[in-house]
Amino acid sequence: MTRNLQVDGQRLWQSLVEMAKIGETAKGGVCRLALSDVDKTGRDLFVGWCEEAGLTVRVDKIGNIFARRPGRLDGRSAIGTGSHLDSQPTGGRFDGVYGVLAGLEVIRILNDYRVETDAPVELAMWTNEEGARFDPAMMGSGVYAGVFALEATWEHRDREGISVEEALTSIGYKGSENIGEHRFGAFFEAHIEQGPILENEEKTIGIVSGVQGIRWYDVIVTGHEAHAGPTPMRMRRDALAGAAALIPKIYDLALDRPPFGRATVGDFHSEPASRNTVPGVVRFSVDLRHPDEGRLADMDAGLKAVAASVVEERGLACTVNDVWHSPPVAFDPQCVAAVGNGAELMGYPAMEIVSGAGHDAVYVSRTAPTGMIFIPCKDGISHNEIESATPEDVEAGANVLLHAILACAQGTEVP
Amino acid sequence: MTRNLQVDGQRLWQSLVEMAKIGETAKGGVCRLALSDVDKTGRDLFVGWCEEAGLTVRVDKIGNIFARRPGRLDGRSAIGTGSHLDSQPTGGRFDGVYGVLAGLEVIRILNDYRVETDAPVELAMWTNEEGARFDPAMMGSGVYAGVFALEATWEHRDREGISVEEALTSIGYKGSENIGEHRFGAFFEAHIEQGPILENEEKTIGIVSGVQGIRWYDVIVTGHEAHAGPTPMRMRRDALAGAAALIPKIYDLALDRPPFGRATVGDFHSEPASRNTVPGVVRFSVDLRHPDEGRLADMDAGLKAVAASVVEERGLACTVNDVWHSPPVAFDPQCVAAVGNGAELMGYPAMEIVSGAGHDAVYVSRTAPTGMIFIPCKDGISHNEIESATPEDVEAGANVLLHAILACAQGTEVP
Repeated sequence: MTRNLQVDGQRLWQSLVEMAKIGETAKGGVCRLALSDVDKTGRDLFVGWCEEAGLTVRVDKIGNIFARRPGRLDGRSAIGTGSHLDSQPTGGRFDGVYGVLAGLEVIRILNDYRVETDAPVELAMWTNEEGARFDPAMMGSGVYAGVFALEATWEHRDREGISVEEALTSIGYKGSENIGEHRFGAFFEAHIEQGPILENEEKTIGIVSGVQGIRWYDVIVTGHEAHAGPTPMRMRRDALAGAAALIPKIYDLALDRPPFGRATVGDFHSEPASRNTVPGVVRFSVDLRHPDEGRLADMDAGLKAVAASVVEERGLACTVNDVWHSPPVAFDPQCVAAVGNGAELMGYPAMEIVSGAGHDAVYVSRTAPTGMIFIPCKDGISHNEIESATPEDVEAGANVLLHAILACAQGTEVP
Repeated sequence: MTRNLQVDGQRLWQSLVEMAKIGETAKGGVCRLALSDVDKTGRDLFVGWCEEAGLTVRVDKIGNIFARRPGRLDGRSAIGTGSHLDSQPTGGRFDGVYGVLAGLEVIRILNDYRVETDAPVELAMWTNEEGARFDPAMMGSGVYAGVFALEATWEHRDREGISVEEALTSIGYKGSENIGEHRFGAFFEAHIEQGPILENEEKTIGIVSGVQGIRWYDVIVTGHEAHAGPTPMRMRRDALAGAAALIPKIYDLALDRPPFGRATVGDFHSEPASRNTVPGVVRFSVDLRHPDEGRLADMDAGLKAVAASVVEERGLACTVNDVWHSPPVAFDPQCVAAVGNGAELMGYPAMEIVSGAGHDAVYVSRTAPTGMIFIPCKDGISHNEIESATPEDVEAGANVLLHAILACAQGTEVP
């Protein structure tokens, strides 16, 4: 029976500390840009650990690494887990790397306790999740899932003109396995939440039911430039006044759809940016998110309606340009249940949660039943050198991952 | 009697057309930057016209030009009029040049009809009113009034490192007259309104009672950067949401004090300017104006109060930094009355108006009783190549100027 099996939290923490030395920054964070020499050092360390654990390592043509522990019924599709090792330029010590090393710890503990599984267990390290050096984000998992074409992606270049293919070759990780040659029977990704909900709700485990749909827009409000002094208030066609009236109504699109609706106006500026000129033009971005596609569509329609009505009252013009639409992802109910059962088995405080950010699991979910496990991060901060998580939560997430995998791979301890 | 004397509107219009050829732009505007070679050409044309009119031309050490028509009692202080010939980089054909050439037309008509005045009449062309090439605006009149020190102002440099003194010397307009050597008995400036009020109210003449006081601020709203996806709406400390709530209350400071109150938020932007990050900081300028210093002080206190209350409700911080304070100017009641009488004498629809923009007359008013005459400009547009005024209004303003000057200089036609 594997009911009481637990990972070695200290060993997992020690691996995280060792990996964080590769590309460590003065402020305690990490700079391990995809396909850089630092990324190669991190990959080499990871592959060394996989080989020490007796795993068979393969690399595909976009540099994704797969490390396999055989199953009793080795013809079955593997139960996969993993995440990414690359980071933002001023990234933290947990984003991505936690999911990779939690998966490694699961395999190590299976080895320690000589647990056999019917299905093989496979650890995946996806190339360039962050998209900081090369566009787009979630490149490796996206190519794997057939969302991006391999040859076209190889041609993407960083700011210095180096292509993905050149960088892969240069660090020795342009592998030979064809893209998508092996699919998983199921896939789990453990990750820090990158938000404040679990911490705020005092939960250890987030049972991730899906990923929010996202719509991006560029909004332009056009009025009439005028001199700040001579022009009376009632004769102005002030683009900023119109935009300021519009913004709260955009937030309402999310506030009216709690708890999952999100509306963000991130990039906002007036033109001409002149102290004594009534702005003739205001430009801003809008980011709307909801895990339900129907409600996201309602928010989309709502945005266009309020934009039209608010500016019309003021003699302004407004255009709302669609920039991007990423539909919501609902994870596989059985995988979600496996995560919830793992948390319950271990007695951890847990809650269902929707991921607000994209992850490799989003693309993998197009190819296999998929689930995710979130653990809290301090103050909800990520993509930042001060990103932090506790050893207790790190261990708890790995234990849930262990039991979700065991449930799917049908593991039993060899007596 | 000079009661029925009128300017030659066609001659004035023709002079405006000729001056507009100097520095004309493809879009029908003017680029005649202060102390440039183009400015020299314009000055030379103007000085030639003054000499043709029999005037004595002097130039002071900051390049202000004074052209004098003697009086019967020539020891009296001259009654002055004028404005500026420099323009914005994409300026119009009336801003400044209208006041100079309206004054010239007044003198031409006095000559034509052999009108003698007790006091001399003097035409002033002030250096660099626009401040487009050299800081600050209203440089020549400010130095003349003792607001700016001559030597320090000579050292101001344009973007290419050329100093005011070098530029004055280069175009031959660093004069020998000491600053402020002659003061005026009274001074009148004719100008386009640069705002929409006269056009909107269907008035030909604005009797300018004074110039608004101005207060400038830099406002910084500080919240907490967060990821647009994972961060629930109610847990955000969104600097833009706070700023958007604050902006309408800033406009209210002016809307609550009609018709003269003005509030403008001209330069506004969020940081980081990232589509999927809740802004942690928003910076914006505030420009508050009112012709009454007490009410402007109330607006100042109101701004600081609403800034504090709006952000406090939202867990944000806000700093309001004072940048500049220009107190209101009330023009001399007798000069204002002289303008009103001139409009009445001619039968023009007229109204009292407060200037929202600064003019040379603001600084001159520190040295002599001063008044201003506004005429409408199309759609209230100025500082723009499409700036426009009608020949009828141009003529009307010059007629009012003529009669205001005659009233002060006590002119009589020689039979």
